[in-house]
Amino acid sequence: MDEFALIAELLAPLAKGEPGAFNLTDDAALIDLSEGHRLVVTKDMLVAGVHFMADDAADLVARKLLRVNLSDLAAMGATPKAYLVGLAVPKGTSDDWIRGFAGGLAEDQAAFSITLIGGDTVSTDGPLTVSLTAMGEVPAAMALRRAGAKPGDGVFVSGSIGDGALGLAALKSGLDDDNAVYLIDRYHLPRPRLELAVPLRAIAHAAIDVSDGLIADLGHICDVSGVGAEIEAALVPLSLAAKATVAIDPTLMDTVLTGGDDYELLFTADKTDIGRIVALATDLALPLTMIGRVIAGAGVMALDHTGATMTFESTGWRHR
Amino acid sequence: MDEFALIAELLAPLAKGEPGAFNLTDDAALIDLSEGHRLVVTKDMLVAGVHFMADDAADLVARKLLRVNLSDLAAMGATPKAYLVGLAVPKGTSDDWIRGFAGGLAEDQAAFSITLIGGDTVSTDGPLTVSLTAMGEVPAAMALRRAGAKPGDGVFVSGSIGDGALGLAALKSGLDDDNAVYLIDRYHLPRPRLELAVPLRAIAHAAIDVSDGLIADLGHICDVSGVGAEIEAALVPLSLAAKATVAIDPTLMDTVLTGGDDYELLFTADKTDIGRIVALATDLALPLTMIGRVIAGAGVMALDHTGATMTFESTGWRHR
Repeated sequence: MDEFALIAELLAPLAKGEPGAFNLTDDAALIDLSEGHRLVVTKDMLVAGVHFMADDAADLVARKLLRVNLSDLAAMGATPKAYLVGLAVPKGTSDDWIRGFAGGLAEDQAAFSITLIGGDTVSTDGPLTVSLTAMGEVPAAMALRRAGAKPGDGVFVSGSIGDGALGLAALKSGLDDDNAVYLIDRYHLPRPRLELAVPLRAIAHAAIDVSDGLIADLGHICDVSGVGAEIEAALVPLSLAAKATVAIDPTLMDTVLTGGDDYELLFTADKTDIGRIVALATDLALPLTMIGRVIAGAGVMALDHTGATMTFESTGWRHR
Repeated sequence: MDEFALIAELLAPLAKGEPGAFNLTDDAALIDLSEGHRLVVTKDMLVAGVHFMADDAADLVARKLLRVNLSDLAAMGATPKAYLVGLAVPKGTSDDWIRGFAGGLAEDQAAFSITLIGGDTVSTDGPLTVSLTAMGEVPAAMALRRAGAKPGDGVFVSGSIGDGALGLAALKSGLDDDNAVYLIDRYHLPRPRLELAVPLRAIAHAAIDVSDGLIADLGHICDVSGVGAEIEAALVPLSLAAKATVAIDPTLMDTVLTGGDDYELLFTADKTDIGRIVALATDLALPLTMIGRVIAGAGVMALDHTGATMTFESTGWRHR
């Protein structure tokens, strides 16, 4: 069996739950939206050698691909519905890799209640390239946006920041202590915060997922909302593993704040809603931490524990 | 300016018509469906060196990418709404290439009433790889499907068959006479038959677009519908250029019937509807030709002008 036949055989069962996928045998797929809802759609590509290593476990590649897209849906306040996957496969890709990739999709689509409905597999002379389009839905007028932050808002972030970027650094350094293992897992397997999508619709003024880096992504909110923001580095929530790592090398705080690959949600909300936000964090057993405030003006300022403005080597959007 | 900034600058205007695209600055895009409609979604990838030549004109690559996806929408009876584009761009891609690509999208999205709403640009160490997700809508229960062909149906095809595959052959042979120019244009710029999408909803029992090859795609209809089909090669409509080319080398009739890249619509319909189909062809100034019939059984049989069964080197689905 060639790799195309194997891919077709392994992906078909992933489409079983959705009649509109036609077992992946038609020209296109059909989706119904719930009444009064809008479709939310996002697309991300990952390239071997750029976004993942060619020898990374295939199931982790598949799960990360799905999760980074789900994180975008969460940032818009959407609940997941369906996805399409595009694969450009080099000749000689092993059956094991293909099985691992399909297995990773199967595991995570079950975990996140989303179903494969279509896609395309082609051959390439270059590196393995994977592309995913994820679709969700949100009630009309309830979508979360980057626009909408207001001076006086608190700036909040879910979970912990910096684990993904520190995990990548640990991977490159060949570290394998307990902290490195934790951080590398977070790099390979981001946790898209879909549990926040629905409750934040009623709370957040603006939202984004932290993929480019905390400072850069807060900058995106500020740019689109026409405001500035000020955060205190000491308030940024770090995992125990990240704290331990930064304690050994304090310069890594830069990596935490600008490294990206967090896939946490960053949002602004009225400070009077802080009680609701605390209650939500408790309900979900997911930290939601206020790290700063929205101000009039433009740009993001980060203050260190002395109140001095921090400078970074790069806070801009890193094109990858 | 790096290529990512240039791509962002050139693609943003393409999203202007659609408020849900947020000028391509948000995590995902929003789309509304018309009431009572379902979303139709399809995704195709093209790789330089596999699906197009690295030195092909960038605008033609963009337009073909969009058109092959639009052809899938047409085959489902859908009207186009929006698309996302994914680009994996090698370092050193010229500004001219990027400008050409964006210009091609601009030209065809205007021609086919579809708007860019999102996507992703990444770097690659491999060949340029482009991926497009196209979305359309169709009234609930009106979608055209590969399933539904019934014994006794006529088998119909739009336009002319074989131009794309003969065009590719001409390109490879370095031909540049008038016929070759016509055929090569058809290879580079398929005509997605969107004008058939709406009228065929009420006429076709089953439909597909001819991308893998006439015989193979009719085989797909037969497989999913649980029927067989018989076509007469002499009835298959050829352009004047294709006729002239096949007259010189009659073995090229194989290429016509199995070569693919036609992006015409192949459909089956009740023979009593032939009057409506003729009227539709006249209305649209687009040939709709009956080339055979659906029969009980399985598989596709092609008959030559003597009534003998034709055999082909390859009629199967060519994975590319």
